Amino acid sequence: MRALTYTGQLSLSNVPVPVPTGDQVLLKVRLAGICNTDLEITRGYLSFNGIVGHEFVAEVVDGPSQWLGQRVVGEINVACGECDMCRQDIVSHCRNRATVGIRNHDGAFAEYLALSVQNLHRVPDSVSDEQAVFVEPLAAALQNLSLVHLRPNQNVVLIGAGKLGLLCALALRQTQARVRVLVRREKQAAIARAWGLIPVKFDEIEPNSAEVVVDCTGTAEGFSLALGLIRPRGTLILKSTYQGLPPADLSRLVVDEITVVGSRCGPFDAALRFLDSGAIDLSPMIEATYSLADGLAAFEHAFQPGVLKVMLKP
Amino acid sequence: MRALTYTGQLSLSNVPVPVPTGDQVLLKVRLAGICNTDLEITRGYLSFNGIVGHEFVAEVVDGPSQWLGQRVVGEINVACGECDMCRQDIVSHCRNRATVGIRNHDGAFAEYLALSVQNLHRVPDSVSDEQAVFVEPLAAALQNLSLVHLRPNQNVVLIGAGKLGLLCALALRQTQARVRVLVRREKQAAIARAWGLIPVKFDEIEPNSAEVVVDCTGTAEGFSLALGLIRPRGTLILKSTYQGLPPADLSRLVVDEITVVGSRCGPFDAALRFLDSGAIDLSPMIEATYSLADGLAAFEHAFQPGVLKVMLKP
Repeated sequence: MRALTYTGQLSLSNVPVPVPTGDQVLLKVRLAGICNTDLEITRGYLSFNGIVGHEFVAEVVDGPSQWLGQRVVGEINVACGECDMCRQDIVSHCRNRATVGIRNHDGAFAEYLALSVQNLHRVPDSVSDEQAVFVEPLAAALQNLSLVHLRPNQNVVLIGAGKLGLLCALALRQTQARVRVLVRREKQAAIARAWGLIPVKFDEIEPNSAEVVVDCTGTAEGFSLALGLIRPRGTLILKSTYQGLPPADLSRLVVDEITVVGSRCGPFDAALRFLDSGAIDLSPMIEATYSLADGLAAFEHAFQPGVLKVMLKP
Repeated sequence: MRALTYTGQLSLSNVPVPVPTGDQVLLKVRLAGICNTDLEITRGYLSFNGIVGHEFVAEVVDGPSQWLGQRVVGEINVACGECDMCRQDIVSHCRNRATVGIRNHDGAFAEYLALSVQNLHRVPDSVSDEQAVFVEPLAAALQNLSLVHLRPNQNVVLIGAGKLGLLCALALRQTQARVRVLVRREKQAAIARAWGLIPVKFDEIEPNSAEVVVDCTGTAEGFSLALGLIRPRGTLILKSTYQGLPPADLSRLVVDEITVVGSRCGPFDAALRFLDSGAIDLSPMIEATYSLADGLAAFEHAFQPGVLKVMLKP
């Protein structure tokens, strides 16, 4: 089958169709999305080797009869079920986890993918393939609400309004908080406005004033900027990984009693309910859809600054 | 009157007895304690100039009749009452605050101190001067319980078991959590054991295993060490300010969804109730008591590694 693999460099290759083992089913990928983590992987992040891709919707083509033919999305952390975190039912933090397309597990930029049945969620008919591809990042965005109690009267600022950042802002918006989104491009601003968010420029935000700041930049500069916006006793949510060890004003955290919360993968069931509600349309986020055969061009497109979601169709 | 002042260097000086203004009362200091912040101030921290000292017990010698003759302790943040934080009753984060012996307000290493009546708390007769001097740092220790919900079944590790660190461990212990304290000296270990804490060496703690870690080291190395001990979804409480901008593994925070909470000043009323209960005896923490006239020798003593509380008696 055709697949986009990374082995020191990204290439379109022909590999065998995977053979499900253990509790795995065989999935035929219908549509997949390129995420910043995929871009980072092609720069050597986590030293991953294998088929890239973890945002997808697929059909079960081999597996137990109750799953056969179902349209599904798949959680990306494959847990051992035995470590201390698994025993406490915090499986996304399994000590021995593999992660689809990220760590010790092939990904979804391929025609087929073998994945544990434990990881599957059925996609309701009301949710199109284009929307379903967003379940994984939307779940990650909803994770902010799992980890931090956001209140309807709060003053929230989000920085780093890219693919994941805009979804985070959308999720925050559901709390009815006042969510301002720092934008540099009209495209982001238009999406933000359509979703009831308030696009702002940096100098429109008073320093040390926001009760909650979400940093989706993944840069040392972004972290420092975020810290400068937050008010005493405020909460800073970190949503993206950072290169290296950024210098951090830890004394500011102490003196102003700021809480910093790291946030990663989130609840797929909640993301599916959100999409099933029909309350939102994520299609403005889609920049382009490429065939898997044009996967390298798709990555080149996704690497351009300000580009939102690029899709791959096997 | 005699006072220990810092003006680029610490010196014993003769200064006028302060004249209370506005809602201030005049306090005659009975006993005061040297804190790490005082030591840092004599190294230039916060560019403070004036009389040092913020841990004290005193007698009201001039003020409203209901306060006259009362033995009191005093909160150290003097709030404006008008800014957004004050209006939300978060007065310890007043935007325009002065801080006794730390910022724009003379301190307690003197015979007399003028302080707003808003800041006073009566000391019950059951609490000796020696214990009452600990109200300020004990309140700061209890602040960890104000900011973080610590549960009786949690596995907590404290590093940096000095003057403030031991009080933090003692406060944490009240939750009935399993509190291990990283110690290097037998003196700390003995106090920890007497308070029902578990003194441990570094290699006795499994990496990434503690649900809550409290870092009282105030060093970049301590922060890094603390982060290495915490488990996924754990909480790291920062209790001391850090020099400069330590490099921080922010990606670890994201991937393991760790929460970092900065913690500063705490509830005096709770600290007084704790001492009034008679459940603890803080005298093992007292290293020595000097007369104010020997204040420079007291500071020299307090600067020695491993030394706990040094007291000053005007």
